[in-house]
Amino acid sequence: MQRSVVDAGKELIKEAISENFDLKGLGLDTPSTVALKIADLGCSVGPNTFFAMQNIIEAVEMKFLQAKNQNLSAIEFQAFFNDHYENDFNTLFKTLPPSRKYLPAGVPGSFHGRLFPKSSLHFAHISYALHWLSKVPKEVAERNSSVRNKSSVYNSSVAEAYSTQFKNDMECFLNARAEELVPGGLMFISAGVIPDGIPVSNTRVGVFYEVLGSCLIDLVKMGVLGEEKVNSFNWPAHHATPKELEAIFKRNGKFSIEKMEKLADHSMEKPLSLKGYVLAARAVMDGLIRNHFGDESAEEIFNHFTTKAEENFSKILGVAQQYLSVFILLKRIE
Amino acid sequence: MQRSVVDAGKELIKEAISENFDLKGLGLDTPSTVALKIADLGCSVGPNTFFAMQNIIEAVEMKFLQAKNQNLSAIEFQAFFNDHYENDFNTLFKTLPPSRKYLPAGVPGSFHGRLFPKSSLHFAHISYALHWLSKVPKEVAERNSSVRNKSSVYNSSVAEAYSTQFKNDMECFLNARAEELVPGGLMFISAGVIPDGIPVSNTRVGVFYEVLGSCLIDLVKMGVLGEEKVNSFNWPAHHATPKELEAIFKRNGKFSIEKMEKLADHSMEKPLSLKGYVLAARAVMDGLIRNHFGDESAEEIFNHFTTKAEENFSKILGVAQQYLSVFILLKRIE
Repeated sequence: MQRSVVDAGKELIKEAISENFDLKGLGLDTPSTVALKIADLGCSVGPNTFFAMQNIIEAVEMKFLQAKNQNLSAIEFQAFFNDHYENDFNTLFKTLPPSRKYLPAGVPGSFHGRLFPKSSLHFAHISYALHWLSKVPKEVAERNSSVRNKSSVYNSSVAEAYSTQFKNDMECFLNARAEELVPGGLMFISAGVIPDGIPVSNTRVGVFYEVLGSCLIDLVKMGVLGEEKVNSFNWPAHHATPKELEAIFKRNGKFSIEKMEKLADHSMEKPLSLKGYVLAARAVMDGLIRNHFGDESAEEIFNHFTTKAEENFSKILGVAQQYLSVFILLKRIE
Repeated sequence: MQRSVVDAGKELIKEAISENFDLKGLGLDTPSTVALKIADLGCSVGPNTFFAMQNIIEAVEMKFLQAKNQNLSAIEFQAFFNDHYENDFNTLFKTLPPSRKYLPAGVPGSFHGRLFPKSSLHFAHISYALHWLSKVPKEVAERNSSVRNKSSVYNSSVAEAYSTQFKNDMECFLNARAEELVPGGLMFISAGVIPDGIPVSNTRVGVFYEVLGSCLIDLVKMGVLGEEKVNSFNWPAHHATPKELEAIFKRNGKFSIEKMEKLADHSMEKPLSLKGYVLAARAVMDGLIRNHFGDESAEEIFNHFTTKAEENFSKILGVAQQYLSVFILLKRIE
C-alpha cells in the first residue's frame, strides 16, 4: 500500500516543487554551489523512503533545469533519514541505493521535537506517520481509568483523549518543522484520513479496531491471553479528518496550505480481498502487538485475527472506502 | 587507551578553538542564530566519540562566552557521527548521552570519500582511525604476489605497498575534508605514529606484527589453521612517522598545520604489563581476526597470542616507548 502511495505522490511532488519552490525567493537563482537538505520523517528502513528521496531530487533537478541559470553539478543534496531511536538504521544504511544522488545521514529521535538546526531544511517529507501519537495519554494509560473501556481497543472516551493528544502532538510537530525549514521551504505530507462527517465506528479504521478488540476478548475467554494484559493494550493513533487537519494547520499559522487533495491510491481501486486485508492489517499491527504481547502470543493473535476478519468480512467490505489518502503541501511562511 | 587520549586531547582542543577558531573571519561575531556542525570521523559506537563531541562543544561555548557578543542560547550544534556502513549505528544512537547539547546524526560511509555537502562543517575530529587503509593494495591482496611474504603479517615489500596506499588515502581524505570544511574550519587529528628514523621492526607496531606473525605460523604448524588462510590474511594499516605526515599535509596544501605535538598519553607512563599488552592487542585485533578466521579460530589465535607475547615480552618491553600519540591541528586555508 505505502509504495502505491509513494508512486501516486511522485507527480504531486513534481508539481509542488515546480510551482511552489521559489528559487528566487530562496536565493537559489544565481549560479553557485548549493546544498539542498531534505528530511524524511518516520522513514522506517526503506525502500519507500529511498523512492521518496529520489522523487524529490528529480523534481528539484527538473526545476533547476527549467530555470536554466544553474549548473546541476553545483547542486548537492543531503538526505536526512529520521525515525525513532528503535528504528533499524543499520539495515537502512546497508540498503541505501548505490546510485543515489545524495549524501545520506540518519537522524534518530521523535519528530514531535526538534531534530535539525534552525532554518536548515529545504524539504520535509512525511508519509503515513503523523497518525501515531507521541504517547498514550495519561488518562488512557492509567489502569482503572474511567476513560478506558476494558478490553475494547477504542471507544468514544479514548477517542476524545487521543484526539486531544493528536492536536498537541501536531502543534509540537508543526512548531519544530517551522523552526527547521527555511522560509519558503516545503513540507510534503501523505496521510491516511477518515472522511468528514462519518462516525469513526463506520470507517475502515473503526471496524478494524472493533475486529481487533473482539479478537482480543475472544482470546481472553479462551484463556490464551490474560485479561489484564489485554486491558493494558493501547493503540496510540488518531486518524484525523481533512477538516480537522485543516483547522490544526490554520491554528498553528506557520505554514500556508498550498495543496490538500485526495491521493490516487491504486491499491484502493481493486476490490478488497480477505487475504489482502489480513496482510495489510498484520503489517500495521506487527510492532505494537509483538512489543506488548510478545512473539508467541502475537502469532496466536494474528491467527485468530484472520478468523475474526473472515467472520466480519462483509462489514469490513462495507466500510472499505471510508478511508482515504491525502496529499498535503505546506509552505513555511516567509 | 583511547579514553586516555581523549582526555589528553581535551585541553589541546580547548586551546586550539580558543586560539584558532576565528569568530570574526567566520562571520560569527555578531549576535545571530548559528548552527555549528561537527563531525567525528571513524567514531565507532561510543562512548569516546561522545566525550570528544562534548569537549569540542564546551570549548566553542567558552570561546563565545569570552567574545561576549553572542547569546549562547542562539547557538545550536549539529553532531555528525561517521563510520563505515558496517558500524553499529543502532547501538550508537541508543546510547547517546541524554543530556547532550547537540542534534545528532549518523553518517555512514568511508571517510576517504565525500560525506558532507561543500563548506558545511566547522569542525572535523578523527581519533586513531587514519592509520586504517581504505583497502588492501592490489599487489598485496593477490595470491602468490611477489610482494607478499607468505605467513608474515608484514615485510618491507608489504610495508612499501601500504605506505603508497596510505599516501593516496590521505590525499583523498584531505581533499574530501577540504571541500566539506568551511574556510577557517578546524580539523583535530589524534593519531598513533612511530618515531622518525627508526626501522619499523624496532617499534611497538613492528614487534606486534612479528609476534602475531609467528603466532599464526605456529598455528599452521600445529594444524590449527590452514596455510592458505594465514597467507591470505592482511593487516591493512600504516603507522606513519611525524615527518611523513607533515610531508603529506604540505603536499596537499589545503590546510595549514597549526599544531603538531606529542599527546600526553597517561596509559604510556605506567610500565607495560603482559596482561595490559594482551588486552590492548586483542581489542585492536578482534574485528580483523574474527572477520578473516571466524569466531572459533579467533579464540585459538588469541590464546596462542598470549603465549607468544609472554615468550617475547622482554622484546615487547624494549620497544614499548617506540610509539607515540600525536595531536595535530589543521586549519582549512581560506
